[in-house]
Amino acid sequence: MIRVGIYGYGNLGRGVENAIKQNDDMELVAVFSRRDPATVKVNTPGVTVCKAEDAEKMTDKIDVMIICGGSATDLPVQTPALAKLFNVVDSFDTHAKIPEHFDNVDEAAKASGKTAFISVGWDPGMFSLNRLYGSVILPDGKDYTFWGKGVSQGHSDAIRRVDGVADGKQYTVPVQAALDAVRSGSNPELTTREKHTRECYVVAEDGADKARIEQEIKSMPNYFADYDTTVNFISQEELNANHAGIPHGGFVIRSGKTGANLEHNHIIEYSLKLDSNPEFTASVIVCYARAAVRMNKEGMTGCKTVFDVPPAYLSAKSSAELRKILL
Amino acid sequence: MIRVGIYGYGNLGRGVENAIKQNDDMELVAVFSRRDPATVKVNTPGVTVCKAEDAEKMTDKIDVMIICGGSATDLPVQTPALAKLFNVVDSFDTHAKIPEHFDNVDEAAKASGKTAFISVGWDPGMFSLNRLYGSVILPDGKDYTFWGKGVSQGHSDAIRRVDGVADGKQYTVPVQAALDAVRSGSNPELTTREKHTRECYVVAEDGADKARIEQEIKSMPNYFADYDTTVNFISQEELNANHAGIPHGGFVIRSGKTGANLEHNHIIEYSLKLDSNPEFTASVIVCYARAAVRMNKEGMTGCKTVFDVPPAYLSAKSSAELRKILL
Repeated sequence: MIRVGIYGYGNLGRGVENAIKQNDDMELVAVFSRRDPATVKVNTPGVTVCKAEDAEKMTDKIDVMIICGGSATDLPVQTPALAKLFNVVDSFDTHAKIPEHFDNVDEAAKASGKTAFISVGWDPGMFSLNRLYGSVILPDGKDYTFWGKGVSQGHSDAIRRVDGVADGKQYTVPVQAALDAVRSGSNPELTTREKHTRECYVVAEDGADKARIEQEIKSMPNYFADYDTTVNFISQEELNANHAGIPHGGFVIRSGKTGANLEHNHIIEYSLKLDSNPEFTASVIVCYARAAVRMNKEGMTGCKTVFDVPPAYLSAKSSAELRKILL
Repeated sequence: MIRVGIYGYGNLGRGVENAIKQNDDMELVAVFSRRDPATVKVNTPGVTVCKAEDAEKMTDKIDVMIICGGSATDLPVQTPALAKLFNVVDSFDTHAKIPEHFDNVDEAAKASGKTAFISVGWDPGMFSLNRLYGSVILPDGKDYTFWGKGVSQGHSDAIRRVDGVADGKQYTVPVQAALDAVRSGSNPELTTREKHTRECYVVAEDGADKARIEQEIKSMPNYFADYDTTVNFISQEELNANHAGIPHGGFVIRSGKTGANLEHNHIIEYSLKLDSNPEFTASVIVCYARAAVRMNKEGMTGCKTVFDVPPAYLSAKSSAELRKILL
């Protein structure tokens, strides 16, 4: 059995807890939280809840630690620190800072002889893998990533920071005409505005100026100004009833040409339609936790990403069985 | 530069030749054919055409040999024999015989210290990879493979063997209703007949009994009897004009559940839409040829499949660059 620890117990941590139950070769040993352990109720009988700072006392009880903190401030500190003690997996998703995060984690993990996976999930993660496979197979081509339809946590937070907003949820929606153009093989150049729209569902405080709120959301730089954004005012009851979930998904499409005169078009498309973004991310993470333990046993230490794992290492089945049933 | 040999120069071999031109780190050195080399005209200036039996004289000139024979009788003999001399890649696609082929090639490659990839392409190949990734991420789920719309060479050959048939082409077509049912997350049980239909375009010989031909095709065991098959009689001119290509494609869909009570559905879908089946297969193969050379340099010898390769090894780019631009 692979003994797993969960470090950070929010949506992602609970998703990891569920995913471990779906994998017979894994058991959850402990959950680490910054909250008072007495106030944290986990869903798995017999699991210890520990203070975050007590992790270092558990190095002989945990084969791999899954770090479920946020990318902005938690993971840049937590992952290098924990990689000194454990094999680890995180879901660091600030794309621009991946090289820096990789170097920090690699240094820590090489020094400790541990194996550390960063940026595991679906983007970065499965979408990255599909960008890689697509680009190597069809070098004369172009790749496109579309997100949604799904809830963006960051954009929902941005809405809720607007003065007069009581609550809100934002959906990122891929533009059907853009998807169709890409699938046609015409390799279009697409602007930000042409690829996605943003749909906002907003609960205004009593007496708030809705026209001003709408204007403020639509003109918000980085988040909304570059997109066609719609703002729908609804009641808190309606938001709770119809927008409580955290669905997401998207598309990675590689369009490329082959042939003596590049006369043949090919379209590779990978898509996800997810009822729960954190649970799917967690499901990917536990596979890489398995791989981390195996790679560590084989002496493959340091920082790794989804690009570095032989796919067979993600499975509990033997290579011979995989060849027989899946190849 | 990676020096490549092509062993067998049919549709797939010519596809490999084209694909090598799309990869700057590779050069085609020699083509090996069972035909008289004087009669074989290749499309790349400066490439030697050799007799198949002269391959053993070229071991110091070729880093990897791509074997483009057929799965029925060529590859079971050729791949183990050539793995004694070279790093090799083949596209062996008789799924049921993969374990046996693997063992034969593994023995040869381990003895020679070479790296040998078998069953590379899209099915087996990229489809297999997606079956693997899907099944590890969503263990409580089901996977579905659909093929088409595309030309099946084996079924087209079967049509042409029917008495009174001058020429013919067969398309395998996925049933839209079955695809929709799978995408809904309902995890349906689907019979062979429910998943695919077979469309035949047949040129009858002058005076042949078309009703008898149609009946004979539709009742052919293994090939057509288990499917809803349509037979369209057309002229040779129409067949040449509208059915000369070798398109193919298909879908691998994993449908699975997560959550404390398995209350969330997820759909992972991978699809290919290919203008040229052999050229796409060739494009996949050259990536694994690159990986074979690199893995061999690192001492990873014996028989390998797509399940055994860290994805980064398929690219000519460095791991740091891949993390920066694709992760």
